[in-house]
Amino acid sequence: MTDLYVKLNTYLRADCLDTDLYRILMEELGSVGAEPTDVIYEEVKCPGTCRPAIWCKPLSTSPSRVILYFHGGAFIGGSPSSHRKMVAHLAKRVGAHALIIDYRRAPDHQFPKQIEDAVAAYKWLINDKGISSKAIAFAGDSAGGNLSVSTSLAARNLGLDLPAAIVAFSPWVDMRLSGESFKTNADRDVLVLLEAIQGVVDTYVGNASLDDPLLDLIHTDLKGLPPMYLTAGTAEVLQDDVVMLAENARSAGIEVQLELVEDMQHVWVCMAGNAPEADKTLSQAADFIRSKMAK
Amino acid sequence: MTDLYVKLNTYLRADCLDTDLYRILMEELGSVGAEPTDVIYEEVKCPGTCRPAIWCKPLSTSPSRVILYFHGGAFIGGSPSSHRKMVAHLAKRVGAHALIIDYRRAPDHQFPKQIEDAVAAYKWLINDKGISSKAIAFAGDSAGGNLSVSTSLAARNLGLDLPAAIVAFSPWVDMRLSGESFKTNADRDVLVLLEAIQGVVDTYVGNASLDDPLLDLIHTDLKGLPPMYLTAGTAEVLQDDVVMLAENARSAGIEVQLELVEDMQHVWVCMAGNAPEADKTLSQAADFIRSKMAK
Repeated sequence: MTDLYVKLNTYLRADCLDTDLYRILMEELGSVGAEPTDVIYEEVKCPGTCRPAIWCKPLSTSPSRVILYFHGGAFIGGSPSSHRKMVAHLAKRVGAHALIIDYRRAPDHQFPKQIEDAVAAYKWLINDKGISSKAIAFAGDSAGGNLSVSTSLAARNLGLDLPAAIVAFSPWVDMRLSGESFKTNADRDVLVLLEAIQGVVDTYVGNASLDDPLLDLIHTDLKGLPPMYLTAGTAEVLQDDVVMLAENARSAGIEVQLELVEDMQHVWVCMAGNAPEADKTLSQAADFIRSKMAK
Repeated sequence: MTDLYVKLNTYLRADCLDTDLYRILMEELGSVGAEPTDVIYEEVKCPGTCRPAIWCKPLSTSPSRVILYFHGGAFIGGSPSSHRKMVAHLAKRVGAHALIIDYRRAPDHQFPKQIEDAVAAYKWLINDKGISSKAIAFAGDSAGGNLSVSTSLAARNLGLDLPAAIVAFSPWVDMRLSGESFKTNADRDVLVLLEAIQGVVDTYVGNASLDDPLLDLIHTDLKGLPPMYLTAGTAEVLQDDVVMLAENARSAGIEVQLELVEDMQHVWVCMAGNAPEADKTLSQAADFIRSKMAK
């Protein structure tokens, strides 16, 4: 994965970079994991998704328990396809189906469209597919980890029943980029660059205020949100994002399992099936989800 | 797909292009098709493959009939992953399993390493997996369409039992680039450029002679090879490659079904599940395979 990240980093810095190329490059994230066995897939058009969403359906699992998954990619890239294998590995461990949505992406669409799409998909699961909110978990990585939390907040603010659990792998939740780890891990993180992510903030935030409660996730009152499994690698510039999020959640009385994993790079779970560290984190997250989710 | 090809073409011309970037771009071929339903996948390490090969196993199909698939990508890019969906759509239609191998690619490895890898995988299917050669079909697209034919030739030269059928989608078989369609379709083909493919010839051929029988597929004596299903689009610069191959095969007494499909671009079958033209060609190819393959 490090090899891939170093390569991607080369092109993510390159002068020839544009949105199309960024998106193509981000699809490569799907190449580092192994194909999970015994999972079938199905595209579905549902609210909150541009191109079809992808159902990951491990054989012999009940369709009544669902992971609603938000892919990463700095709100600009990534797709159900780039994250299919990783999410299928998670779904198998949980013993649930997973739905990966293709929310509207920046720069064409900005905050809070992504959250609106995620809420629409959540409501569709409950109202159209008849899934109990107690049998739904939100999960996501990087920008999708942000959506895992911000979508729960939006759902709470709308008075919806909340999901059973939130999982965020290497989430990016501080739009002010205030974490010390941007400095302390600058030389260790082989993918995420401060200069690159600075440019992305405006792309996502647009004209909104950084004080917006759905943007300021490390200060917003998170009261009432479901239990959270949060994780980041200690080589990540985004390490402090997850630490500050965990502090904020705990101060609101939320149960948090925070796992900082030594030396891991951004979204190492993408190596599922090919690296024991990825498999271990996915297993932990799955245990957490299963312990919170209704049977 | 045309949108994607125009985009890819931009980067395939770009000054920043290198092998890594080309390979990343080629992976995007996998993004234009739809996820096939009811297929499970399994990675397997077998002879003739660098990274794991991928088994595509449609549910409820017999494992005793196998499509051995060679992906395209100018011998440089492409992978089992980029071609997974397209091949799974084909396998479902045939009612067979399919094995997509990850043969060694140029420029690190040159002719005839790719053919040696394909032969090794074929022998593994017969000797280790116990599949009858009469229940095996070779299929491939672009450079993989070339391998479909050249691997059959190599197998014949080695005295091996031959597969039941050969399928080649938009094959590139003339290393001299002599087809008139390079001129007549220069403005219609949105992906393949004469200038680009000229550079690729040496990358694959290396120090071999263009007269080598395994390279000169439009003149080599193809006697004894199995029936062929050959197809290209009439918007392709490679259209004449398939016409010349069909002529050569027929002159050797081989049964050939040649389908030139109006206005189609290079490897349009990658749109499987999202475009009726792709589905129609895959269905035709599957009918052909089924009619030749032992039950």
